[in-house]
Amino acid sequence: MTDRTGPTRRALLGAMAAGGAAAAAGIARAGSDPAITEIQPWMQELGEGVDARPYGTPSRFEAHVKRRNVEWLTADPVSSVNFTPLHEMEGIITPNGLCFERHHAGIADVDPSVHRLMINGLVDRELVFTMEDLARFPRHNRVYFLECAANSGMEWRGAQLNGCQFTHGMIHNVMYTGVMLRDVLNAAGVQTAGKWILPEGADASGMTRSIPMEKALDDCMIATHMNGERLRPEQGYPVRLVVPGWEGNMWVKWLRRIEVGDQPWHHREETSKYTDLLADGQARRFTWAMDAKSVITNPSPQAPLTHGPGPTVLTGVAWSGRGTIPRVDVTLDGGKNWHQARMDGPSLDKSMHRFYFDFEWDGKPLLLQSRAHDSTGYVQPTKNQLRAVRGENSIYHNNGIQTWHVDARGEAENVEIG
Amino acid sequence: MTDRTGPTRRALLGAMAAGGAAAAAGIARAGSDPAITEIQPWMQELGEGVDARPYGTPSRFEAHVKRRNVEWLTADPVSSVNFTPLHEMEGIITPNGLCFERHHAGIADVDPSVHRLMINGLVDRELVFTMEDLARFPRHNRVYFLECAANSGMEWRGAQLNGCQFTHGMIHNVMYTGVMLRDVLNAAGVQTAGKWILPEGADASGMTRSIPMEKALDDCMIATHMNGERLRPEQGYPVRLVVPGWEGNMWVKWLRRIEVGDQPWHHREETSKYTDLLADGQARRFTWAMDAKSVITNPSPQAPLTHGPGPTVLTGVAWSGRGTIPRVDVTLDGGKNWHQARMDGPSLDKSMHRFYFDFEWDGKPLLLQSRAHDSTGYVQPTKNQLRAVRGENSIYHNNGIQTWHVDARGEAENVEIG
Repeated sequence: MTDRTGPTRRALLGAMAAGGAAAAAGIARAGSDPAITEIQPWMQELGEGVDARPYGTPSRFEAHVKRRNVEWLTADPVSSVNFTPLHEMEGIITPNGLCFERHHAGIADVDPSVHRLMINGLVDRELVFTMEDLARFPRHNRVYFLECAANSGMEWRGAQLNGCQFTHGMIHNVMYTGVMLRDVLNAAGVQTAGKWILPEGADASGMTRSIPMEKALDDCMIATHMNGERLRPEQGYPVRLVVPGWEGNMWVKWLRRIEVGDQPWHHREETSKYTDLLADGQARRFTWAMDAKSVITNPSPQAPLTHGPGPTVLTGVAWSGRGTIPRVDVTLDGGKNWHQARMDGPSLDKSMHRFYFDFEWDGKPLLLQSRAHDSTGYVQPTKNQLRAVRGENSIYHNNGIQTWHVDARGEAENVEIG
Repeated sequence: MTDRTGPTRRALLGAMAAGGAAAAAGIARAGSDPAITEIQPWMQELGEGVDARPYGTPSRFEAHVKRRNVEWLTADPVSSVNFTPLHEMEGIITPNGLCFERHHAGIADVDPSVHRLMINGLVDRELVFTMEDLARFPRHNRVYFLECAANSGMEWRGAQLNGCQFTHGMIHNVMYTGVMLRDVLNAAGVQTAGKWILPEGADASGMTRSIPMEKALDDCMIATHMNGERLRPEQGYPVRLVVPGWEGNMWVKWLRRIEVGDQPWHHREETSKYTDLLADGQARRFTWAMDAKSVITNPSPQAPLTHGPGPTVLTGVAWSGRGTIPRVDVTLDGGKNWHQARMDGPSLDKSMHRFYFDFEWDGKPLLLQSRAHDSTGYVQPTKNQLRAVRGENSIYHNNGIQTWHVDARGEAENVEIG
């Protein structure tokens, strides 16, 4: 980690060390706080033992930290989405229990002892793998974000949803373990004419997407584990496709078959869906890579500033489907002045990154934005810059800059400026 | 990731691509497997919707993946330990629900709105922090292993426990978010005479340990989050000390107070416990750093080879309290021949590392060992090398090489050799 904020942060810590800011932060002196002088119940009683929770769960005081769905968004929860509570989270790893879900026919309840993966089409040998067969290929571990192409989609037409969980929560970031798709395809022997693959899911929607062979042979994985344990059912247990940096719909869950063909299949999810209708009536297609994007998670509408003026930690996340995030800029005044944020935690290819801006809040209203730069040199655009190019018909691929207005009480709301 | 296995792995993949090994691995041809031609129930029915599990849980087919305790080990489960199921895990991140537990008075059920952290003793300003106060210091993210000093302790006197969950499962590896202890101590102003700290826990055991100021001001953290979410109750919710690379007992949970003093306190956990009684009756003290160690997790007694001869993936984990793990060696024949394993996944300071050895099993018995090298040049010793120096009275700090015997059926057991 490099301390990029420099003067600001050093001034803050200097002030804290001098005791001035410590008082400003409302830090009480010892003895003045009854909470420290009282013997709390948990200091007097024995708690649960090591046999109580063979698989652990969060504290009862954290019950509000959960995925949330929006009832009016879709006709039925079996073909819908819920959202990762980004405003409650830290670091870059999304715990498995909080990874957003998107299903087209509900969560398939797959028995791994019966499930198979078939490779067919333009291959020398059509193969069928048990889950144990797959475990005999060399395994690899990579941290990748998965973002739904429709993440922030409601925001194309102006500020709609009041909270980063809803505006940006169709994303998660997980360490996958699995085998390289290229190793499995090589075992089947892809024929010269084989230029595309069609992964197919084993849920009742039979999800399919066309993926070019170049990507399939590059960094795609057939994953069996996430964050150290088996995939969760809602994330494709026992096996899902990982398509690093590309839109989430392509990461086919409950993977049962991969067909090799000589051209794309033009199925529903790559024609009527997951395409971008421009103002002139033309549609952008095959817009797979997710462009660089960022969002401030704290403060935000679901996470107001509850303390008064003084030392304040602003934080958020940034990611790019094309590489790493070497830099994020933050503004407190709607873009008049930009400050380079402090990046912290591992910087990994096509992974979420965490940024901070540690500042002294003067108690006046704030107009917050963050702007990601990725390792290709691309800079996250404003929403209006995107609209000028793509119009306002789009549902997908909105990576525009998000604005939060924070009032003098510390309450935040989703707004648009400029 | 660097492919270190070189010829072995290339030969394996080459054989698979040629179809020979694919057949040897028992990979069925399409059409020969009724599982692929049948329409499974989950392809015909709608599953649970996005409103079903606001906080997700593992598949019902993974109910065997859990922390396990050993009833005869301690008098009562409120002052006991359970073990991480290393043989069921992959990658380097331990999911929060599977992180091993060690309590001295059960799991404190702490209300974060009432909980406080006090800094007192040889400081210019005695301070009391609410959890919100702590969140106003700059935050940092680091992945660290936590290993109990007694991990593998039963193995000092020979092979005792049959499974890496029990021999090596008092370890977990988590991404922490928190504030630097030095920033909090600086806010209080450590006096020149202040050379040690005494962190104290808020559970009924009032856990305390002496930690030298040099370590406190170096890389220690006051953590509030693990793997992206708030600490779990059994890991010290809402706040624990992180003491990177040092024995787990020092990572005081439910942290309520840090006293600054001019010498160590010589409390119970650093005198009668967590010291190493040598053969001559002297005891080693203040043996905090956990030396480099590794274990093969698959195959192992709880995870036999269930397939026949042919392509086989051996995997395991390695770690060092003194740095990274650039290299792990593996032997299949009890040390006659050593092979350099393939390291995969992020290599982070004082974090767990994942290694693999991809080989063709000939179906004959194996005598498996792994040997970690850390970034200081230290090489993991044999158990007998350790015994020669430390005798056999020890309970703590056994980082000796572990041996598994795998028979022709693929069944593994814990053995000692040479």
